[in-house]
Amino acid sequence: MNIALVGVTGYSGQCLYQLLQQHPHVDQIDLYGHGTDNTYDLKENWPLYMNINTKIKPFDVAEILAQDQLIFFATPSGVTAKLALPFVEADFPVIDLSGDYRLATPTQYEAWYHKDSAPQWALAKADYGLAEFNDPTTAYIANPGCYATATLLGLAPLVQQNLIDLDTIIVDAKSGATGSGKQASAGTHFVHVNENLQLYKINQHQHIPEIVRTLKKWNSAVTTIQFNTTLLPIDRGILTTIYATPKQSITTQTLLQDYQQTYQDRPFVNVYPNGVPALKDVIGTNNCNIGVTYNEATNKIMIVTVIDNLLKGAAGQAIQNFNKYFDFPETTALPQTTLTF
Amino acid sequence: MNIALVGVTGYSGQCLYQLLQQHPHVDQIDLYGHGTDNTYDLKENWPLYMNINTKIKPFDVAEILAQDQLIFFATPSGVTAKLALPFVEADFPVIDLSGDYRLATPTQYEAWYHKDSAPQWALAKADYGLAEFNDPTTAYIANPGCYATATLLGLAPLVQQNLIDLDTIIVDAKSGATGSGKQASAGTHFVHVNENLQLYKINQHQHIPEIVRTLKKWNSAVTTIQFNTTLLPIDRGILTTIYATPKQSITTQTLLQDYQQTYQDRPFVNVYPNGVPALKDVIGTNNCNIGVTYNEATNKIMIVTVIDNLLKGAAGQAIQNFNKYFDFPETTALPQTTLTF
Amino acid sequence: MNIALVGVTGYSGQCLYQLLQQHPHVDQIDLYGHGTDNTYDLKENWPLYMNINTKIKPFDVAEILAQDQLIFFATPSGVTAKLALPFVEADFPVIDLSGDYRLATPTQYEAWYHKDSAPQWALAKADYGLAEFNDPTTAYIANPGCYATATLLGLAPLVQQNLIDLDTIIVDAKSGATGSGKQASAGTHFVHVNENLQLYKINQHQHIPEIVRTLKKWNSAVTTIQFNTTLLPIDRGILTTIYATPKQSITTQTLLQDYQQTYQDRPFVNVYPNGVPALKDVIGTNNCNIGVTYNEATNKIMIVTVIDNLLKGAAGQAIQNFNKYFDFPETTALPQTTLTF
Amino acid sequence: MNIALVGVTGYSGQCLYQLLQQHPHVDQIDLYGHGTDNTYDLKENWPLYMNINTKIKPFDVAEILAQDQLIFFATPSGVTAKLALPFVEADFPVIDLSGDYRLATPTQYEAWYHKDSAPQWALAKADYGLAEFNDPTTAYIANPGCYATATLLGLAPLVQQNLIDLDTIIVDAKSGATGSGKQASAGTHFVHVNENLQLYKINQHQHIPEIVRTLKKWNSAVTTIQFNTTLLPIDRGILTTIYATPKQSITTQTLLQDYQQTYQDRPFVNVYPNGVPALKDVIGTNNCNIGVTYNEATNKIMIVTVIDNLLKGAAGQAIQNFNKYFDFPETTALPQTTLTF
Repeated sequence: MNIALVGVTGYSGQCLYQLLQQHPHVDQIDLYGHGTDNTYDLKENWPLYMNINTKIKPFDVAEILAQDQLIFFATPSGVTAKLALPFVEADFPVIDLSGDYRLATPTQYEAWYHKDSAPQWALAKADYGLAEFNDPTTAYIANPGCYATATLLGLAPLVQQNLIDLDTIIVDAKSGATGSGKQASAGTHFVHVNENLQLYKINQHQHIPEIVRTLKKWNSAVTTIQFNTTLLPIDRGILTTIYATPKQSITTQTLLQDYQQTYQDRPFVNVYPNGVPALKDVIGTNNCNIGVTYNEATNKIMIVTVIDNLLKGAAGQAIQNFNKYFDFPETTALPQTTLTF
Repeated sequence: MNIALVGVTGYSGQCLYQLLQQHPHVDQIDLYGHGTDNTYDLKENWPLYMNINTKIKPFDVAEILAQDQLIFFATPSGVTAKLALPFVEADFPVIDLSGDYRLATPTQYEAWYHKDSAPQWALAKADYGLAEFNDPTTAYIANPGCYATATLLGLAPLVQQNLIDLDTIIVDAKSGATGSGKQASAGTHFVHVNENLQLYKINQHQHIPEIVRTLKKWNSAVTTIQFNTTLLPIDRGILTTIYATPKQSITTQTLLQDYQQTYQDRPFVNVYPNGVPALKDVIGTNNCNIGVTYNEATNKIMIVTVIDNLLKGAAGQAIQNFNKYFDFPETTALPQTTLTF
Repeated sequence: MNIALVGVTGYSGQCLYQLLQQHPHVDQIDLYGHGTDNTYDLKENWPLYMNINTKIKPFDVAEILAQDQLIFFATPSGVTAKLALPFVEADFPVIDLSGDYRLATPTQYEAWYHKDSAPQWALAKADYGLAEFNDPTTAYIANPGCYATATLLGLAPLVQQNLIDLDTIIVDAKSGATGSGKQASAGTHFVHVNENLQLYKINQHQHIPEIVRTLKKWNSAVTTIQFNTTLLPIDRGILTTIYATPKQSITTQTLLQDYQQTYQDRPFVNVYPNGVPALKDVIGTNNCNIGVTYNEATNKIMIVTVIDNLLKGAAGQAIQNFNKYFDFPETTALPQTTLTF
Repeated sequence: MNIALVGVTGYSGQCLYQLLQQHPHVDQIDLYGHGTDNTYDLKENWPLYMNINTKIKPFDVAEILAQDQLIFFATPSGVTAKLALPFVEADFPVIDLSGDYRLATPTQYEAWYHKDSAPQWALAKADYGLAEFNDPTTAYIANPGCYATATLLGLAPLVQQNLIDLDTIIVDAKSGATGSGKQASAGTHFVHVNENLQLYKINQHQHIPEIVRTLKKWNSAVTTIQFNTTLLPIDRGILTTIYATPKQSITTQTLLQDYQQTYQDRPFVNVYPNGVPALKDVIGTNNCNIGVTYNEATNKIMIVTVIDNLLKGAAGQAIQNFNKYFDFPETTALPQTTLTF
């Protein structure tokens, strides 16, 4: 199988490229840049490929349509919207790691992303690929955002089974610095991030609408959620702490059973029988680990979820969607254990 | 003025010793260990004092009563309870950085600390020294816990002015590793903390009861709060993210005014006119910086507070209490600016 | 093929276990502890295995000899010496990650390790398994130390080809904290390591004698080397900066050719055509990347080598030796690319 | 006393501003930018000053000459060269934290800095202010570079007393990320620095010529030195590991005496009686701590020096030079103990 990959130089693109190279059903990976002009060597961006003359070619729709069976977009939000259009039109298989096809309407997209949207007809053709709760029905898979993945997997049993007061949901999410992308700025300077902790995009994070859209599918009574993001002084990983008030009387034990039942056949989701996961428990894997607690004294549920933002939160889930799309075993080429301590 | 300091080898004790050395009203600092046996040199614990023969003497009540005007306890919880008793009995001035005299009853202390409590009569003689809201009225000042300080300064306007539904309070607190103390353990191993994030003492943190006790003084309708702690891969600093639902219609602007009014004469509390503080904004200072937000979409207040856990959260506030007790200017010998970036 | 692994709970043991699970020629991994008493579950030490009832059995020589084709020792130095003896006696295949069989004599071992040595006859049966320069000739492979691997691969061309004044060798080596092992101590406390840098075991590091022993095999004129170790505030990785004065006139270009020639058929060693490697270039791989520079102004060679101390410096090289021993392709089950940025 | 400070927004400038505010002989600090156009508020760059309307004024030579007693330049190399000229001409007191007046000739400056030099006559008027070995004799003090300070204080006894073979000097220096300045770039991105280690400016660091120039003053036989720099994943601090071969027979004890004698009256230099300093021993202070070792087996001296690059390596030494210039006690307003652990 030949696969096209656009945008290999960002963190997610690099990660995706590594995973694709180990995929037993992928014979050839054609690398493309955003632009239409120049060819350059992968090694210019990546010491690892220093000794290898892999070319990144200019973007070429006709070539890709002729030669590949699927295209991955690991391009920035705002770029994919336009680049992907010919493939949407052709119903050619796409897995899109950007946020450009995750929302329902151009209006909503432009309100949260402050960039030009793909047209309505194109958005309508995309499937939101939260792999644990979606079986691909269209050729276009909008791969979920990293925060959205960690939040939705944490909230699914609560919202689907109508266990909580929906207006009490609070998500306090924390992410490592790869989540902010590779662009150098005052905000990604080592000295600004290291030995520090800071909230950002307060009440304005662009993953909020895709979270709410999915929650609404699960439970139409959802309106919105309080969701905040904090930048951690680490390379990778997302931990969400999710709070909610139960609708009726519960115990940690019944709650745990709900989670275990929901995820019993999902190979990448691990519900902890006791306690909550640490972030490092999943780094280097495609797993989402979940801890479930209920505090009788305050009548509050607290759920903790952890993922590797570049794997389950991006490239890993993209491969998982790829596997599902082509009916390969879901875990093909995806790490479930870790070499991290 | 001669001052006694018991427990100089822990993080808070070291910090306190440094601050006391720069205090213009302190002439002599007498260092004592917990034990009654041996004298040893400060330099054994501290490269900084390598060239100085400062002695740490065995604990000696009579000597301290005769020679010093006040005693600081920077000893671990469980140790101070007993050591401090003779001073309580004598109404000798004490500033106690441990948790041993912060709660109302031995029963409560033992439920949260799992250690022997000081007797009821002794607890009754202690004042809870949250410096911004307490003027010393007794000789015994129980210096607040680090988490408690950051949480209470964040909640004060909301709870004192009855602005919120009290059962909606959620405090998501994060702390650097000095907060866990100097003891080596699996949990404080570098590889366990670094590039990681983990919750601990879920719903069981011993600072919860002192927070609730103080909130109740401010507003008798308070029962308890949802409070959780997360260990950060950094040396020092606490950031709390506090959520609550307002009782009546508010705006960010009215909320901000409430905070500004509450703290207008408090030299160490800075309310941000826009946005929220980053943790590094206060490291190396005795400040508590506060950011105030209201999200109309979700009708949730979010308050962010940051402190240096070893200064405002421990040794700094102890000096602040010392200054207040002896009617020195409150800011004497306390850093308000920072050399951190 | 059935494999025994003793000591799965340390960093190297964990890493080795993960690699063995992905090895296509390994059917079963039998886990053993050091002791002879109790059986316990792997999950007690490892959240990753939380849902799996893998047993760690008490050490049982007869069972292993009967049931396995090779035994890995990932036990601490001082422990392996004795545990491994029955296998040495039986000429049963052993790959030993500890330092216990790397030196020539008990006297030397005890001088550097301060522990009881294996007997002389047993030491004599062990092969030093620096994989790039050794083809297994005996059943006992002493897997090299992490620092030794990074140093020897950096020095090999210089010493083998007699290019330098041997008494000018200086190795300034730096290692992440997993190199110090999992034991909690004042020295491994997060606050002691983080935002810090410190030399340790000055002129006394136990890897010095195995380095010198190997260098002497390559060039009998070697006597000893100046070798120092510095603890880095990171999880993993070793970077060595190696200095030496050339014997005769050289250029960076000729030097580079010497290195490229030496390593042209070694799949895990990458010589950089320009500049020197950063540590992260190899994290997560079994590679040793090497940069080569010559400073005309000072007439000094500077070589930089980087490895992942847990892979190429421990478990990875152990698998490499395993592959070589059983004539599997050398790179089987060993990562050569990285998901680290 | 009124003081002008140009360039308060960089790391060194910020640090200098904080120190000057606590200096008992400084009444007023006039802040200037590089440009001649706009006035802006300090708080735009610095959350700490959020509530204070301190102005940064456009650069104005006449105003400064009229109103201030001394000017500090914390401007980048290449900028100071020109800005400082009118003050050199006027023999007005300058302390210059940039590298622009540290070298002897424009040719040399341009070869290492790749920027336009100040003219020869101006360079000739500057004093190199290594505070432990220089008493100001001119109005222009070129404050030493951070690496140069750590290196020269480590080498002084060896070179001044002619104890070593001068062509064996190797300096392996390591620095935290504030040393690279505040400019955002691929090289200062958090993910590029964190959990990493990398050499930079190999054999080309611009501090080499000022080190060599000073060494030559001390011992005319010096030609050049092997000096390399490695970027550490920490905020601040420099550790140098210095190697050299002794000229004649020595012991650690005699070496230690040489160092102790050299530095006995220098309040900021601490020679360790045993072992070597860790980097954190000096963070937050103006100290340079030194450890001295001799390895009999290899006949190599190893010296370790540590400084806080922003204090002793920049703003702290600038204040020390300021104190010396105006005959204030050398330690005025300079921290000698630390709140870091």
